[in-house]
Amino acid sequence: MKRRTFLKVAGLKGAAVASAVTSVAAPAIAQSSPEIRWRLTSSFPKSLDTIFGTAQTFARYVAEATDNKFQIQTFGGGELIPGLQALDAVSNGSIEMAQTPLYFYIGKEPTFAYATGVAFGMNHRHQHSWWNFGGGAAIINEALAPMKTHAILCGNSGTQMGGWFRKEIKTVDDLKGLKFRIGGLGGHILARLGVVPQQLAGGDVYPALEKGTIDATEFVGPYDDEKLGFHKIAKHYYYPGFWEGGAMLHMVVGQEKWASLPKHYQAIVNNAAAAAGTWMLEKYDSVNPAALKRLIAGGAELKAFPQPVMEACYKATQDHLSELAAKSALFRKAKDSHDAYMKETMFYTQIAENFYDNWLLAQMRKG
Amino acid sequence: MKRRTFLKVAGLKGAAVASAVTSVAAPAIAQSSPEIRWRLTSSFPKSLDTIFGTAQTFARYVAEATDNKFQIQTFGGGELIPGLQALDAVSNGSIEMAQTPLYFYIGKEPTFAYATGVAFGMNHRHQHSWWNFGGGAAIINEALAPMKTHAILCGNSGTQMGGWFRKEIKTVDDLKGLKFRIGGLGGHILARLGVVPQQLAGGDVYPALEKGTIDATEFVGPYDDEKLGFHKIAKHYYYPGFWEGGAMLHMVVGQEKWASLPKHYQAIVNNAAAAAGTWMLEKYDSVNPAALKRLIAGGAELKAFPQPVMEACYKATQDHLSELAAKSALFRKAKDSHDAYMKETMFYTQIAENFYDNWLLAQMRKG
Repeated sequence: MKRRTFLKVAGLKGAAVASAVTSVAAPAIAQSSPEIRWRLTSSFPKSLDTIFGTAQTFARYVAEATDNKFQIQTFGGGELIPGLQALDAVSNGSIEMAQTPLYFYIGKEPTFAYATGVAFGMNHRHQHSWWNFGGGAAIINEALAPMKTHAILCGNSGTQMGGWFRKEIKTVDDLKGLKFRIGGLGGHILARLGVVPQQLAGGDVYPALEKGTIDATEFVGPYDDEKLGFHKIAKHYYYPGFWEGGAMLHMVVGQEKWASLPKHYQAIVNNAAAAAGTWMLEKYDSVNPAALKRLIAGGAELKAFPQPVMEACYKATQDHLSELAAKSALFRKAKDSHDAYMKETMFYTQIAENFYDNWLLAQMRKG
Repeated sequence: MKRRTFLKVAGLKGAAVASAVTSVAAPAIAQSSPEIRWRLTSSFPKSLDTIFGTAQTFARYVAEATDNKFQIQTFGGGELIPGLQALDAVSNGSIEMAQTPLYFYIGKEPTFAYATGVAFGMNHRHQHSWWNFGGGAAIINEALAPMKTHAILCGNSGTQMGGWFRKEIKTVDDLKGLKFRIGGLGGHILARLGVVPQQLAGGDVYPALEKGTIDATEFVGPYDDEKLGFHKIAKHYYYPGFWEGGAMLHMVVGQEKWASLPKHYQAIVNNAAAAAGTWMLEKYDSVNPAALKRLIAGGAELKAFPQPVMEACYKATQDHLSELAAKSALFRKAKDSHDAYMKETMFYTQIAENFYDNWLLAQMRKG
């Protein structure tokens, strides 16, 4: 409080007063809004201009809000650090920050599945409510604490597409032996139905699909999928990407680095992350519709997964998540919290939001 | 650049160096992050802790991000300025900022209907995409320019409930002569079907409903409605509130006051508004489900508007909006932009997001 009074006096009355307070005021100011440079590694390539663009937008918002004093330089996956090692790099202090989907790290801690999204889990809107008002952030940050990091919510893809398949999926049996590029828990769940999940980095997927090393691949949604050209090889474009209801994305930051920031820089980072997060979904909604139309015009055949396939996957999901919950108290805590919150939000959403959407969609289909 | 170098030197080397740069550095600093106090009037009472809480959250975020240098004091509707005069007060410079739904002011400019939301219009998610990526902000700010103000998006209610009715609405004929407390364009549209729309401030609604001066009232959603106790008098609780798909809320700021802010304060305000906006919907989703359950337990009878009523209202809406578009080029510009964007976003949402939501709701209903 005293410091601010000093500054005001100095600013209003000029040099004569200022000289009297210099030895206190000048160092205090330099400390209060210091020049800081951080680096941020993304798990995504720069070509994904919506996902990576979210990291760039976040960094720009932070710079603008600090009069360019706090600069965060953004790097694409692999530029400094491989995409799948982003969390480790933040954890060991090699880099200050990462934009990374936490379910990449379920090998370390299965609970991270709930940080991004689980199969048949909450949609983007309910996930964000859970994160900030339902205890989600506290549970995930408990899981991150041993890695001396914490996560700041920054964006969501919304419900994704189910991906590109060389052959039609007509029955549950068609999943048997299917070499499907899908990572994380979604892969583990589909493996219960005979799928052979493949982990491949973004750039390797197209050639693998072309050569027939894999039969199918999921990615994100029309706008991102189109860039990778999957429709030229695998024309059956399925929906929805049920292995996550919405994919929450986070900025992960090292606790020690975080503590070194002035409190108002921390506030600026939190606000910038929320603002860049809204940018992400708004941008996707602005580009996905036209991309989907171009894909269809280019030969993509749009198909919903058949009901028996959805049901078998739903059952496999419940079994798999229950097994994991039986093995880990933290996973169970996340699952119980998520499931209870989902039940509540779904109960309400069907009354107003979903009814309204469905009614209008029916009206639009009538013409 | 030079200024920042000075500060760094002063901060690192202490008083000896600082004394040499004082007369330049101190005033420059005071200017770069000045102490500013603004006042914000809301159109809502403080008792609506989610809507008014969004204004408080916004002000808190701004204060935290500026180390308390930029303080925005929040006032409930009527404390300084009546709720319906918030825009005027900002326009004439009586106050720096207002939290107000712009469709309060369709009497000045009908285009403001699209700033908040029109009947059978886009849902909250698509509205926000339109605002930032579809030209929405530019059109509404064009409409605000004669009032020397501009609007910053800050929150949304999501789809609202249809409100409380003393008697059941079974047919379109039941709307004839119905004294319904509903403001703005929604009221004008329903008047085409015989409704007698009533404009009443929040505090006057309950007694009017009790005395039978009005037959029905709409408000927001379960959490806010419960506080006002409408279910004690009018037990038929209808959904959805089709007179707006989602209600965008804005912070309206005077252009001159805005221009007087340092650029990084402007950035801080924009980020804080986006962040507080996400807070609002997340908060609503965290409290509406339980409130709805309590209302049902307290005797509320939940009902969807009958299909013929919805269809008649849809038709009346299209007629009404088309008539307004024929009279005003700016209204037509907003309508064309909104409608085209809605068509695109609805086309895509049905594929992934809506399919996923519907599938899960069906699954949950099965148990």
